[in-house]
Amino acid sequence: MIPLREIFDNDLFSEQDIRSQIEEYEIHELIDQWDTLNPDEKFTIFKYLDHTEKTDFLLELPVPDQEQLFQVFNGKQIDQLLGDLQPDDLVDIIQTVSEDVKKLLWEKLSDEAKRETLYLMRFDEDDAAGIMNPRYMAVSDRINVGQAMAFIRKNAADVESIYNIYVIDKKQVLVGVCSLKELLSANDAELVRSIMEDEFISVREDTDQEDVAKILETYDLVSLPVVDAGNVLLGIITFDDVIDVIREEQTEDVYKMGAMGGGSNRYLDTTVWGLVKKRIPWLIILLILGTISTNVVAHYDLVFRNALLATTFLMVFMPVITQTGGNSGSQSSTLMIRGLATGEIHFRDFWTVIFKELKVGLIIGLITGLVIFGRSILFPPNIAITHSIIVGIALGCVVVFSTLIGALAPLLIHRLGFDPTVMSGPLMSTVIDVCGLTIYFEIAWHMFKLISG
Amino acid sequence: MIPLREIFDNDLFSEQDIRSQIEEYEIHELIDQWDTLNPDEKFTIFKYLDHTEKTDFLLELPVPDQEQLFQVFNGKQIDQLLGDLQPDDLVDIIQTVSEDVKKLLWEKLSDEAKRETLYLMRFDEDDAAGIMNPRYMAVSDRINVGQAMAFIRKNAADVESIYNIYVIDKKQVLVGVCSLKELLSANDAELVRSIMEDEFISVREDTDQEDVAKILETYDLVSLPVVDAGNVLLGIITFDDVIDVIREEQTEDVYKMGAMGGGSNRYLDTTVWGLVKKRIPWLIILLILGTISTNVVAHYDLVFRNALLATTFLMVFMPVITQTGGNSGSQSSTLMIRGLATGEIHFRDFWTVIFKELKVGLIIGLITGLVIFGRSILFPPNIAITHSIIVGIALGCVVVFSTLIGALAPLLIHRLGFDPTVMSGPLMSTVIDVCGLTIYFEIAWHMFKLISG
Repeated sequence: MIPLREIFDNDLFSEQDIRSQIEEYEIHELIDQWDTLNPDEKFTIFKYLDHTEKTDFLLELPVPDQEQLFQVFNGKQIDQLLGDLQPDDLVDIIQTVSEDVKKLLWEKLSDEAKRETLYLMRFDEDDAAGIMNPRYMAVSDRINVGQAMAFIRKNAADVESIYNIYVIDKKQVLVGVCSLKELLSANDAELVRSIMEDEFISVREDTDQEDVAKILETYDLVSLPVVDAGNVLLGIITFDDVIDVIREEQTEDVYKMGAMGGGSNRYLDTTVWGLVKKRIPWLIILLILGTISTNVVAHYDLVFRNALLATTFLMVFMPVITQTGGNSGSQSSTLMIRGLATGEIHFRDFWTVIFKELKVGLIIGLITGLVIFGRSILFPPNIAITHSIIVGIALGCVVVFSTLIGALAPLLIHRLGFDPTVMSGPLMSTVIDVCGLTIYFEIAWHMFKLISG
Repeated sequence: MIPLREIFDNDLFSEQDIRSQIEEYEIHELIDQWDTLNPDEKFTIFKYLDHTEKTDFLLELPVPDQEQLFQVFNGKQIDQLLGDLQPDDLVDIIQTVSEDVKKLLWEKLSDEAKRETLYLMRFDEDDAAGIMNPRYMAVSDRINVGQAMAFIRKNAADVESIYNIYVIDKKQVLVGVCSLKELLSANDAELVRSIMEDEFISVREDTDQEDVAKILETYDLVSLPVVDAGNVLLGIITFDDVIDVIREEQTEDVYKMGAMGGGSNRYLDTTVWGLVKKRIPWLIILLILGTISTNVVAHYDLVFRNALLATTFLMVFMPVITQTGGNSGSQSSTLMIRGLATGEIHFRDFWTVIFKELKVGLIIGLITGLVIFGRSILFPPNIAITHSIIVGIALGCVVVFSTLIGALAPLLIHRLGFDPTVMSGPLMSTVIDVCGLTIYFEIAWHMFKLISG
């Protein structure tokens, strides 16, 4: 396919040529090349999309582009788009666009859409109700399969998902679930109540969205009903909402591992100040925490000097000691954090984990100690063999310690009810810098005393 | 609910009591407490599960537990389970269990299941065909809606997903897709061909599973057809397969960020040696790379000593300098890696990104420089104010450098066709240790010369 940039830059192409070239593209391919285009070209592309593709496409665009499109659309185009959007997607858009665009859209909404939007905006956006769609396919528990099928055929176009049919009583209480597949294979005369599954999975309006994701995944459900305390059906959450939750969660975790604060905004849309604000808090906290290491080093430097012992070789190996300690700590904390997140590791596995990590730590401590020993006698800067032995043993001990603390810290933090992801990479390695250097110098000091009798 | 452990430990409970207690549990709750149980108790629980829950449950279990269950089942129980498993899930199990269990299962498979399994095992497990289900709902393009609905009603029970109906010609070539919703709202007499969507999304058998995930997500599709080069329909991929792919990918990325090699095996099932093998390669590579810093420090120590300059204060601040450099580098590399992974950042944004990171780097360099300056004049170890200025300026420069290299490296690595995740946390901070220390000492050296005229 011809790149979009070239399609628009080619003077030989008529409008019709451009259109037919663009129609060759799938929407994910258009999105990929989206930021090579100017606003006019973006509008042209959107105009040429199929009616059914427009909402999918809009939802994939970054917020500034969504705003731009709404601003250049005429009234009829906006009406159509708003009409095609599912209520939960509409709320997402209303909640993220600028005040101006929000006002523009709000005026265009039908009374019903306004009511629906206000209703959905009441809920916390991290809760089940915050991602649910209030339009679902529900039938009464007193009708038969034939009647239900007739009702579904008539109303299928109005709802997003008809894969699961929810069965409610006259008080809107959810009493059962029936897949369309089961309904199709059933006899017309049977009562819906008799074929429905009355032991079904549902979530409460205030269930955390990450728990919703786990439940939908476990049961491979295409949709999940959201109910209130009285079991009244409020809406449904579909698999695509869950995929969005998983991606969001993933971005947040990765940011935390990279020592950065919340929000999963697009990088290119974030201002320089926005980026600074996202990064500076952790950086300063870790910097101040990290300066404790300064006192550790200064203290031992004095101790060694007072004993008239050379410290140069110890100083020289400091960076590689802290780095290796940090790496081994990160490895065990990563395994713990992941295990806790996927629900594989629990606090009751505490001792199993600690013994396992102790064994692993001893083995990798031994290996890394030998490697640094070998390296320091074979290559410059050449140091005395006793010094090489000291460095090797000290590194081994630092690695054992780091491996253990890397496993311990996330388990304890999780136990206390906090998110253990915070203990990954950067914070872990700062803690290890301080403790690791203390261990390093202590061991060196004791070995020196041992050697000198 | 009473914890499972207590249910089994309570002597007052009859078998019937235990059963009714367990029936209160949802399967994800059972899985959560699974490893508090002994093999007999696990078997008991499995026995009490509903017929329909058994396969979902089995697929959520760790491999050793799957093997254990297969080994205690009698022939009829295995037959039933194997019959209920979807072909793609069956292949997953066959490919992960031990040789003994594989043999046991293989003997129990029907000829058709064997054929299907062998067929699926031909494909690479990271490709579209490796995760597809060869059972789908397809109808001929020459029948009408009424005939199609009759066919679907008759065969619904045999396939996993009937949400999308695939329309094929007599050569099995995929010519259209029709959602069940559209089919339900259509008139019985209409030809399927006339209501189907003939511009549909499909993937080729060798499409990478991560691309499959992105496509399904972009279009919010519940299933996606897999075709060969001649457009012949081979199977379908459903949303739940894609959720598995996203989770797998997530674990792999997190491990890479924690400096660990492949495989997303469960922690508790991995032996100590398995864990060592997973961790030691990166640890050794980074250790050896990191020892370059030893030479850097030794070199400058000599330079300063030869000029009769004190180096103690420089040494003392080394750990916090490398740590802060590593953190700021990790922040920008994390943003790049995530942006590249989600397709938001491309190589063509190179200069935009570099200028942005330069500005961010200058601001956070200034702030962190001021913080360390303030800290070093206010708190012990007390150092001369000129030394504090030197450390502040040097840290600022290291942070600017780290921020830039943190953005540059992933972009270039991605451009060269490699996975930029490798440049996250650990490798990044090792590179920054070596380069950062060089910058630190160089700046200190030049400032010393400047001061001493």
